[in-house]
Formats: sequence, C-alpha cells, structure tokens
Amino acid sequence: MKFDLDRLMAERGIDVAVVSGRIHGNPTMYYMTNGAKLTQGVVVKPAGRPPVLGYYPMERDEAAKAGMDSFNLGDLNPRALVEEAGSTLGGTVLFYSRLFDTLGVRGRVAFYGEQDQGRTLALLNALSSGVPELTVMGEFDDTIFDHAQLTKDEIEIQRMREVGKKTAAAVQAAVDLIQRHRSVDGVMAKADGSPLTVGDVKREVLRTLFELGLEDPEGMIFAIGRDAGVPHSAGNASDPLRLGESIVFDLFPREAGGGYFHDMTRTFSIGYARPDVQEIYDQVRFCYDKVVSELRVNELARTYQHLTCDIMEEMGHATPRTDAHAESGYVHTLGHGIGLEIHSRPRFSDTKLNEDRLVPGSVFTVEPGLYYPDKGYGVRLEDTWTVGADGMFRSLTEFPKELVIPV
Amino acid sequence: MKFDLDRLMAERGIDVAVVSGRIHGNPTMYYMTNGAKLTQGVVVKPAGRPPVLGYYPMERDEAAKAGMDSFNLGDLNPRALVEEAGSTLGGTVLFYSRLFDTLGVRGRVAFYGEQDQGRTLALLNALSSGVPELTVMGEFDDTIFDHAQLTKDEIEIQRMREVGKKTAAAVQAAVDLIQRHRSVDGVMAKADGSPLTVGDVKREVLRTLFELGLEDPEGMIFAIGRDAGVPHSAGNASDPLRLGESIVFDLFPREAGGGYFHDMTRTFSIGYARPDVQEIYDQVRFCYDKVVSELRVNELARTYQHLTCDIMEEMGHATPRTDAHAESGYVHTLGHGIGLEIHSRPRFSDTKLNEDRLVPGSVFTVEPGLYYPDKGYGVRLEDTWTVGADGMFRSLTEFPKELVIPV
Repeated sequence: MKFDLDRLMAERGIDVAVVSGRIHGNPTMYYMTNGAKLTQGVVVKPAGRPPVLGYYPMERDEAAKAGMDSFNLGDLNPRALVEEAGSTLGGTVLFYSRLFDTLGVRGRVAFYGEQDQGRTLALLNALSSGVPELTVMGEFDDTIFDHAQLTKDEIEIQRMREVGKKTAAAVQAAVDLIQRHRSVDGVMAKADGSPLTVGDVKREVLRTLFELGLEDPEGMIFAIGRDAGVPHSAGNASDPLRLGESIVFDLFPREAGGGYFHDMTRTFSIGYARPDVQEIYDQVRFCYDKVVSELRVNELARTYQHLTCDIMEEMGHATPRTDAHAESGYVHTLGHGIGLEIHSRPRFSDTKLNEDRLVPGSVFTVEPGLYYPDKGYGVRLEDTWTVGADGMFRSLTEFPKELVIPV
Repeated sequence: MKFDLDRLMAERGIDVAVVSGRIHGNPTMYYMTNGAKLTQGVVVKPAGRPPVLGYYPMERDEAAKAGMDSFNLGDLNPRALVEEAGSTLGGTVLFYSRLFDTLGVRGRVAFYGEQDQGRTLALLNALSSGVPELTVMGEFDDTIFDHAQLTKDEIEIQRMREVGKKTAAAVQAAVDLIQRHRSVDGVMAKADGSPLTVGDVKREVLRTLFELGLEDPEGMIFAIGRDAGVPHSAGNASDPLRLGESIVFDLFPREAGGGYFHDMTRTFSIGYARPDVQEIYDQVRFCYDKVVSELRVNELARTYQHLTCDIMEEMGHATPRTDAHAESGYVHTLGHGIGLEIHSRPRFSDTKLNEDRLVPGSVFTVEPGLYYPDKGYGVRLEDTWTVGADGMFRSLTEFPKELVIPV
C-alpha cells in the first residue's frame, strides 16, 4: 500500500523517488497523483515527506484538484533553461537540478514512470554526470512501486469490486445478445438471415463497458473454435457464432481514463457442447475449484502454479513443466496480480526466484486453461480474487460458470 | 516517413534500432508494428534491413497478422534465462544478447519505446557492461522516430482526414444536444427543469466518439466562463450551461485502440455573446485567418509563433515574449505537430534551437487563443492542418467557426 513507500525507500537507501511523464497510460504516475487530469507532470517524493506534484501552469486548475502539495514548474522557466544550455537535453538537466534545489532534495534519486527508453538513458546519464552531487538510480525489478502495489487498501479493493460488477454486466450483455438471436443451420443468425458474428458481440460488449464507465485499452478476447485454442488470439470479427464450438471470452477492462482493471474469462458453447469440449471444460472446472479450495493466506503464489501442473499432468496434459514450448495442453501460468496494470504482482511463475505470496490486500487472477488448437477448441476459466484483512479469499467476479448458453 | 528510417540510421551511425514494451500507449511500437494487437513485443530493425517483430508464443496469431518478419521469443526460453542468470535483470541481459546473436545484429544499438525509467536505466547499463561488443545508445531529442514521423505518407494522411471528419461529427453532436434544449432564466434546461451541464455534453460527445470508432484517451476540454480562461482546464461536469458565456471546446480523440489523433477547438457562446467575448473572439479569428493566410511550404514553424505574438501584441495583449509567466493574454504556442501522439513534431516554439519546418507531409495544429480568467472568459480556435506533396496547405477539420449557438 502507498504508506509502505517510506519504509521501502528507507530499506533501499533511496532519498528521493521521482515519477515523471504522462499521466495517462503511466500507472505509476496515476498511482502517485490519484489519477489527476493532467497531461503530464513530475512527482517528487522525498523519503519521509509527502510527495509534491510539479505541474505546468496551463494545468493549474487540474493540479489543484489532485489534493496534494504542488509546485508550478513554470517558475523554473523551462524554456529559458533550454536556451541557457543550448540544447533540450542540457536544459532538461538544468530543469531537474533546479527543481531538486528548490525542493531541497539531494542524495540518491531513483526515477520511475514510463518514458522513451533512449531518452531516459540519455537524460539520466547526463544528469548523473552533470550534477555530481546526485546519485541517479534505477530499480529493475520489485521496485518500491511494484512492492507497494502488491497490496491494496480498502478503497482500492472497493473500486476493484465495482469494476468487477460492471465487467460481469458486460459479459451478461454478450450472453443476452446471443440469446436474443436464434440459430439457423447451426449458426446464430440475425433477422435478415446474416450470421451473428464475433464483431457484433464485441461491439455490444464495448457499448456496455462504455455506458458503465469502463474502457477496454488492451482489447478483449472473444475467440471461437480453433482460435479459442490459442490463449491470446483475440478472435476474428467476421467469424460467425456456430453452435457447439468452444468460445473463450476473456474481458479485462479498466475504469475509463485509466484506473483499476478487472480480469475474467468464461468459456461458452452456444446451444450445446461438443462432448470433447465438455470433457475438457469439466477438467478445467475441476482444476479451478481445486486450486481455489487450496488457497491459503501468506502462501507462496508459485505453490498454485505447481499444484495446477500436478493436476493437469495427472489428467494427461502437457504443462510448461513437461514442455516449455508446448502449444497444446496447459501452456501458461495460473494467474497474475492485477491493479493499475493488467499484469502486476504477485507473480505465479513456478521458480525459486519468485517469492511473491498471497497476503492480505493481494488482488490476483486464477485462470487455468486447456488448449487444443489442432482439435479446434480451448477452455479457460478466470476470476479475479482478493485476500481480505481477515485472511479470507473472495472472488471479485460475480458471474456463474456455465459452459452452455441455451438458445 | 517510415522509409526515412534507414537514411536516418545511416546518418547517425545506428546499426540497430530496438523498440520494445507494450503496444498500447506506446506510439513507437504502434508505428513499427502497424498497430498489431499484441500486448507486448520487441521490434529489431537492423540498418538497411526490414524490421523483425519478436512475439511471445501465446500471441502468435496476432503477430502473424502484423504483416512483417517475425520471431518467436519463446525460442529463447526467457524463463530459463532468468534461472540461468539468477535474476530477472541478468536474465533480461541474456535475453537481449541471445536475441541479437540469433538475428545476427551487433554494433551500435539504440533503444526506443516506453518503459519504466528506472528499469530502463538498470537494464541498459547492465546490457552495456554485460555485452561489451554492443554499444548501447539512447537518443534524447529528435530521435529517428521523431524525425521520421515529422512527415506522413498518403495512407497516414487519409486516416487522419477520417479521424478529422469523425471528430467534427462529435462536435456537431454537442451542438445538436444543446440545440435540442431550451433556456430558462439564462440557463439551458432539461425537460425536468434541471440544468443541462458540462457533464451531459461530455457524455454525448463520448458516446458519439465511441459509435464512430474513436477514443478520448487524454480527456476533452469543455470549459465555460472563467474555466475557459485557463487553457487546459477540462471544465467541471456539474457546471450548468449558461447563456452568453464563452465555452472553449477542445476535442482531441484518436482511433480506438491507439492510432492517429485529431485536434480541434471551437469557442461557443449559447444564445448570444457577451460583447467583451465577441470582441476577443473576433481578435482570435483575425489572428487565426492571418496566420493561415501566411502559411508557406518549407517555412520554419517558429515563424508563425513569432507572427502570432506580433499580432497579439499589436492588439494589446501579453504574449510569452513579453511575459513568460503571463496567465492572461496569449499564453501558449501557436500549435504542435500531431500524429500517433497528440503533441509531436513539428514544434512551434519561437527559439533558434527549433529548426522544424512545415514541409510536405507535415500535420500540425494552428490554435491561437486569448485568455482572461479574471474577466471570466477565454477563446481558442484550432484546426489540424496538413501540407500536401503539392505544397498546398489544407485543413483536416471540416467544421465552421461560429461563436454563437442559436437556441
């Protein structure tokens, strides 16, 4: 949680954390500015002191709404600094140097937030050599922000629960759309006789998300038949909805304008299920239920990837453990942490290097799946789960798991 | 344009350009993958050779649709590399080292694309020391991708023209919504007597954008009265629409899922205009028309910021030239380049360091404005313009400039 940042900075010897760049599409900036409606800015967080939001003067109204200490970057006269230095790079070094002087920060300065990689390398190396009294740092893995966001507070969990309800409503809208149509010769058909397509369903889902105040930045998966057998195949808009085929519907929207994600997957089959699809579905459902029944607070996340491989192998499927390159069977990890990023901590990869645990405040997905593209099907089931302060596990995905959509 | 990349790489002594990270919200990745529907990847562009898209095996279907040479990153077994190195950082260094070996690239390698700054610093410095036969580079300003995107090809211009038409339709939807209501005591009112608000208009505009296949990632500006006097004030959702007040409506959506932006601003006043608002509006309109009439192919962009300051100062307003900290008068630059990013090249800042020119294939905004928050108003007018291969300037914003919306 955010209040862990001071402890983490002290443990790692970080005197100042600087987060910069755009707000939108920059989860660390969003986290530190509470989603302020600025286009860009700089947050300076000295150890043991509240963060300061540096904003540009045209955005002073929106900065004031962020509810944090703030500083008008226009006072540094960035344009004049570029003229003084004779280059934008030199001017930007001067800008940071003056900003740090003004805010009275020095020592070990760590940078965060999304920026172009080449710009970052050029700037931070120039800053390091141009301002020798600073020690410019970068954390690669398990950064203080990764670590702080391993746990969510009650307000964050409540927001994520709301996103979960709305996501489920959008999945229901897809089911409703399908059920408003009837089948003709094994294909769902519109009133004019043309087939109901994957694209039609996606449009209905997008419209529902929009009406509910969610957005779909990463693009949903609605993949039928063989495509359902490739985990990240998004599905072809022109594919007609055929009866009896497995449909993997993976929806992972977030609050509009950036914010918290939800992630859920259901596998559907319209009208009836092919027996081979039903069999695989039952196996995935068994695995899902077994894993969920074994969830224990403070357990290593990788334990559950291990358990899933045990279950899948016992049922005769390849897993990443038996074949790292498998494209059939169980071919991914069990889940992932989720928050302001769709994939965050905890990680579930089954390696000793992964020490992530399911602790109170964790939010993560459980999503076993089985994929047989050559046989023309795939199945995945996924809910987003959280661990409460009471150590209890709760799903944030309120939607039944039924394979067949009756039509 | 994209075919300039090889020339630019040769001029700058870059042997390999590497673009990595997410596709969404990462314009350089979007540019190099033609907006492939992957979540992430690595593009390796050796000098003089076509780019290669590195993808993860679960996303092989979407990678195949990108229409470019591709490489399955799973073949490098990234997870085993992390185990081998004993850390994710070490594993990532091995990953790049093996990837470059496999693709037969070496020499001066420049990195691009959005990533967390600290991760970038740690990774690129580790790569530099861990693989001494590479020279790891970063461009800060005027990168090869900035430079290539200074000019758009006919396909890009056509897409941007389409976005312009749809953006104009969304502005029209706002006008239509307002005109479907009537005024009661100087405020636009709904059937139930409650006021029509800024939030109501924004919802209608968002719905229209959505239906037209656009998204609004940066958040539109619809600001009335005093807020219209602060250039980036987004407007308060609960503000009622009052007659006679200036409304700055700045809409800058892009193709849904990432893609090309359009940017346009109109200033409206409902029912009638206060005389002081009308006067300022006429001045901005005069300035806009004058600047547009002076546009010349291959001219320095900064010439037009200079010209705008001349015009505004002649009319008695402060400008950034007379007061860098002014919050009243003309307080910004005339425009900006636009493409896959809302603010890109050419730049219009009036400094000798800015050598950007309006060349065939340039796409940019022209947006003079005057701001008087203390007097309760602001005015801005903006179209997106392009320069054709014939040297002719054309607006991509097909929408009239009329201050008063009759009701």
